[in-house]
Amino acid sequence: MTKSIAILGASGYTGAELVRLIATHPDLRIRALTGERKAGHPMAQVFPFLRHLDLPDLCRIEDVDFSGIDLAFCALPHATSQAVIKELPPHLRIVDLSADFRLRDPAAYEKWYGKPHAAPELQREAVYGLTEFYRDEIRAARLVAGTGCNAATGQYILRPLIAAGVIDLDRIILDLKCGVSGAGRALKETLLHAELSEGTHAYAAGGTHRHLGEFDQEFSALAGRDVQIQFTPHLVPMNRGILATAWLDGDARQIHEVLQTRYCAESMICVLPFGTLPSTHDVRGSNYVHIGVAGDRIAGRAQVIGVLDNLCKGSSGQAIQNANLMLGLNETTGLMAAPLFP
Amino acid sequence: MTKSIAILGASGYTGAELVRLIATHPDLRIRALTGERKAGHPMAQVFPFLRHLDLPDLCRIEDVDFSGIDLAFCALPHATSQAVIKELPPHLRIVDLSADFRLRDPAAYEKWYGKPHAAPELQREAVYGLTEFYRDEIRAARLVAGTGCNAATGQYILRPLIAAGVIDLDRIILDLKCGVSGAGRALKETLLHAELSEGTHAYAAGGTHRHLGEFDQEFSALAGRDVQIQFTPHLVPMNRGILATAWLDGDARQIHEVLQTRYCAESMICVLPFGTLPSTHDVRGSNYVHIGVAGDRIAGRAQVIGVLDNLCKGSSGQAIQNANLMLGLNETTGLMAAPLFP
Amino acid sequence: MTKSIAILGASGYTGAELVRLIATHPDLRIRALTGERKAGHPMAQVFPFLRHLDLPDLCRIEDVDFSGIDLAFCALPHATSQAVIKELPPHLRIVDLSADFRLRDPAAYEKWYGKPHAAPELQREAVYGLTEFYRDEIRAARLVAGTGCNAATGQYILRPLIAAGVIDLDRIILDLKCGVSGAGRALKETLLHAELSEGTHAYAAGGTHRHLGEFDQEFSALAGRDVQIQFTPHLVPMNRGILATAWLDGDARQIHEVLQTRYCAESMICVLPFGTLPSTHDVRGSNYVHIGVAGDRIAGRAQVIGVLDNLCKGSSGQAIQNANLMLGLNETTGLMAAPLFP
Amino acid sequence: MTKSIAILGASGYTGAELVRLIATHPDLRIRALTGERKAGHPMAQVFPFLRHLDLPDLCRIEDVDFSGIDLAFCALPHATSQAVIKELPPHLRIVDLSADFRLRDPAAYEKWYGKPHAAPELQREAVYGLTEFYRDEIRAARLVAGTGCNAATGQYILRPLIAAGVIDLDRIILDLKCGVSGAGRALKETLLHAELSEGTHAYAAGGTHRHLGEFDQEFSALAGRDVQIQFTPHLVPMNRGILATAWLDGDARQIHEVLQTRYCAESMICVLPFGTLPSTHDVRGSNYVHIGVAGDRIAGRAQVIGVLDNLCKGSSGQAIQNANLMLGLNETTGLMAAPLFP
Repeated sequence: MTKSIAILGASGYTGAELVRLIATHPDLRIRALTGERKAGHPMAQVFPFLRHLDLPDLCRIEDVDFSGIDLAFCALPHATSQAVIKELPPHLRIVDLSADFRLRDPAAYEKWYGKPHAAPELQREAVYGLTEFYRDEIRAARLVAGTGCNAATGQYILRPLIAAGVIDLDRIILDLKCGVSGAGRALKETLLHAELSEGTHAYAAGGTHRHLGEFDQEFSALAGRDVQIQFTPHLVPMNRGILATAWLDGDARQIHEVLQTRYCAESMICVLPFGTLPSTHDVRGSNYVHIGVAGDRIAGRAQVIGVLDNLCKGSSGQAIQNANLMLGLNETTGLMAAPLFP
Repeated sequence: MTKSIAILGASGYTGAELVRLIATHPDLRIRALTGERKAGHPMAQVFPFLRHLDLPDLCRIEDVDFSGIDLAFCALPHATSQAVIKELPPHLRIVDLSADFRLRDPAAYEKWYGKPHAAPELQREAVYGLTEFYRDEIRAARLVAGTGCNAATGQYILRPLIAAGVIDLDRIILDLKCGVSGAGRALKETLLHAELSEGTHAYAAGGTHRHLGEFDQEFSALAGRDVQIQFTPHLVPMNRGILATAWLDGDARQIHEVLQTRYCAESMICVLPFGTLPSTHDVRGSNYVHIGVAGDRIAGRAQVIGVLDNLCKGSSGQAIQNANLMLGLNETTGLMAAPLFP
Repeated sequence: MTKSIAILGASGYTGAELVRLIATHPDLRIRALTGERKAGHPMAQVFPFLRHLDLPDLCRIEDVDFSGIDLAFCALPHATSQAVIKELPPHLRIVDLSADFRLRDPAAYEKWYGKPHAAPELQREAVYGLTEFYRDEIRAARLVAGTGCNAATGQYILRPLIAAGVIDLDRIILDLKCGVSGAGRALKETLLHAELSEGTHAYAAGGTHRHLGEFDQEFSALAGRDVQIQFTPHLVPMNRGILATAWLDGDARQIHEVLQTRYCAESMICVLPFGTLPSTHDVRGSNYVHIGVAGDRIAGRAQVIGVLDNLCKGSSGQAIQNANLMLGLNETTGLMAAPLFP
Repeated sequence: MTKSIAILGASGYTGAELVRLIATHPDLRIRALTGERKAGHPMAQVFPFLRHLDLPDLCRIEDVDFSGIDLAFCALPHATSQAVIKELPPHLRIVDLSADFRLRDPAAYEKWYGKPHAAPELQREAVYGLTEFYRDEIRAARLVAGTGCNAATGQYILRPLIAAGVIDLDRIILDLKCGVSGAGRALKETLLHAELSEGTHAYAAGGTHRHLGEFDQEFSALAGRDVQIQFTPHLVPMNRGILATAWLDGDARQIHEVLQTRYCAESMICVLPFGTLPSTHDVRGSNYVHIGVAGDRIAGRAQVIGVLDNLCKGSSGQAIQNANLMLGLNETTGLMAAPLFP
């Protein structure tokens, strides 16, 4: 039961990652690839690593015939996404990878993104795409909003702990170490090899990062009260991967047990033995999440560390996992490949 | 028609790469994994990136029951391999990834490896495992010798040109740029991140690298005369990938045409449009080979540049491609995954 | 007034860094270099980057004539250092770069290093070498103990804040991002380029890292009460640099003011404008420390981020700064070179 | 005898490298720094690694008072440089780091740079700035043209051999491995960390790289006949460093002897023992050149490998070496710092 899909915005990293993963997906066929500035060019020119594949050339969105398409992935820039999706035909299932439909509250959207939402009715309709926590809603949804990659990493660690009430909700610190591909293919001096390799620095410190909007929304809903975490990301000279170190008030053994219980039946999430620490090396290029828990010499304090690949489980892999659910396919089809090591 | 396989020497990089690739191979099942020093340990401890897989624990070779095994991959150190393979049961098909059976001539073996071969009868029997050039022999073979990763890269570039007689056989220069995983998991100061990242150097200059034994054997046989090339590898701060720059005397357009004609029907080898230069980025983690050809302002001179992933097409991917042939499977099953980029 | 110095243990990274810095120091002359396993070899063979220098060959410690030496740097492994220093002639000034003399309390030493100290009388005599905080003691000392590189980074951030009483002493979290050279030239799989580049992971989590002994000693003395911080380091794929993110309870503006006031007269320490975040790129290869302060959306919470080069300011640069003081030289002579960027 | 200097174009990498080196130069004082787009900003904002220095703010060229300036370094983009220098006051000594004055022949300039030169009279006047080969001319010159970084590397290897007549002039192949900072601070996708780290590729293959204009000019003049070499650079994931592998027809021992004899009195150039191979790691951040020679199993063939730091000896270090000569200072003042390793 092959399904036809389109990828809108295929000339960026998340678009290319979708193509990479779908290349060996047995049930999905790519029927259209769009890229406004690169329209008319073959993908092999934009991404030579995809040269061996038989792919449609890039075209403009208005030139796509959506009649035979079952599902579209939108890997467009923030703000562009909402304008485009508003105009798509109603039969189409949509997985959006931008930030446009992650926040349900129009006021929260305006606060974090600086202007009113252009498609508030779609914003209300969209389902938050953290697969393991919204499966039923995703299966039934027409529009699914992919999560932020940092937001996904933090939630895999923290949701079960907040739900179980085993940590102090006013003492949640999330210190993130992020690979560079999370910034996309943007041309900025700080993303040049010469300025990024061989060093590290923090950015968006002190509660200014937009993914906090997602944490606030999800954690507050979960706790039934207002929850605000502290969160600062650091740019690390690696292309893929996020490592989230959560500094928590709670009992480490209990925390470990809660996580193990929650995830023991999840095929993409491994909770490591107590005291074992995860590495982004061990999930690179894959859809897996590894989570480790360590105690502290100070009683009642714990560290929970989670890792995933920002482009895969944090973005395009998650998108395919959601698409599988929406199309009635096996949830993990095409996503079981092992990480690349070394 | 699932086949049962064993991996002897699964605690090194080529062993781990075999597991990585076989993890999503539909027709191969891993029944045994050996590792002398790590016997008794689970693979997840030696290679945490394989944690999500249900794998047998590592054991000693003598503890493997080979009766139900169809094929064994030997990813053992050079010299160990010949001693081990000699003792394996005769029904077993074997793909060896070491250097032990690459050279057919006992004198050449002794010259390049410094001591007499311990299993000369097997040496005679072994088929050289450069898949695209030895398919029929590999299909029928009991023992296939994986090629050197540098030797494979050079041969993909040069074999068709030597066979077609379009280059000067006394003027073949191969300047290689090699990723670090080619050196294996050996503990040497020069392989430490601190001493390898952010710099490059040549090694084994001036015709001293052991893979020259393979070049000599194969090119001389092909040309029907003695052929000696010049070859120096350079260590580049990247984990995977070999880029071979061949400096040749010949007509660049003719060279390009010969390569295109030879490889147009090969699914794993892409000859790029004339003048387009390949990058190791575009084959990383995959079984593909990209080859580019450029002319020179000096008439009659050309450069041919080939890239592959040393651990995959240069070693473990090639081994599986050969195993597929030996077991009557489709040659490229399990090997069509796209490269990882970025 | 040229001073003669010896470097004991010159075949490791901190030894080499001492030579690098002293190469252009106008007042220090290297008279002896020791290296037990490399005795008899020229430094150019052990560290080819020092080839242009006219240096004594490596020798054994017992072959050094200390009579004309003013000061010895000991860059020996932990535990070896105390055995060697005990036997050195009494006229000799000594700057030790190992961990052997950092802890004043024999019980603390035994707790963190697992066995009793072999030279407790020297342990009592040694001065803790955090230059900016122990200047007078260092000037007068015969034996100065270099600090741990992580310990130095954390103290530059935290000492003024603890002294000023502007942060909650029971809520100090230090999340470190460390370059690989901090682990020295040890041959371990995790330090190989293939296993370290392109990824990150935590180690020594939960209050188990030995540098906590230094934090406990110094912060408790400073506060006049027992202070225990939380501290976990993360290995980042860069060769040099430590970035320490301190998560603190306190007023960010007040914290910034305290740091600015404390360091405004220090030539090696820059406090950045409020809200500006430092990068290890900006201190690489130099003796400078950069410190940034950011507030948080949660009132009363702050982040202080400090960066330094672990081999230079965190170890060998600090050692020379201390030696300058001990020898009556200008404190920063030979240490004012700008960082290397890019 | 302190000299006053200006740096025109201080917001790029070569400008920053000039500041880095001059920061500890005892005889040079920076009086003006220009940067058109960043005019009015402090250098600490453009290059935070220079934060500890007391520097003039960036300004526009027209706002510089050149009356008290002895020498100006021009680190401006190609083509801009010739327009600017034409307008500078005649008393000013100038070291230009662009490509504008490297070629003496107007026709050659137009061929390689695609348009006629705007200041042909200055082009005639300019002295080619390869210090070790043009010392007397540089001392007397008003305008010195810094060499291309690739061109410098190739010439250090090849000039003595061409002059001595010990290699076949029709068989010179130069295979370069180049760090990324050679491309400057340009915002291009191929220079992003995500697309450059962990891989390598050739560019400007087949005799199309502009530095060939310099090789042609210099080698033909030296040989007294037309000399054309083959030259292809490869981009390597490292920030600094060029490694040039020359594949030559000649006697390796004789070649080694010629190089040793030529350079034995040069303080910045080390010829390694025969058979020892140099590494870019060993010159990083320094003004030194290391050259190694290896024979080949094929008699009469040799490889000569040279390494330098493209930003230092290949550009800004060379510029200061030339400025020292022009200003009557010791040639290597400020340039003797050891490389940074690791």
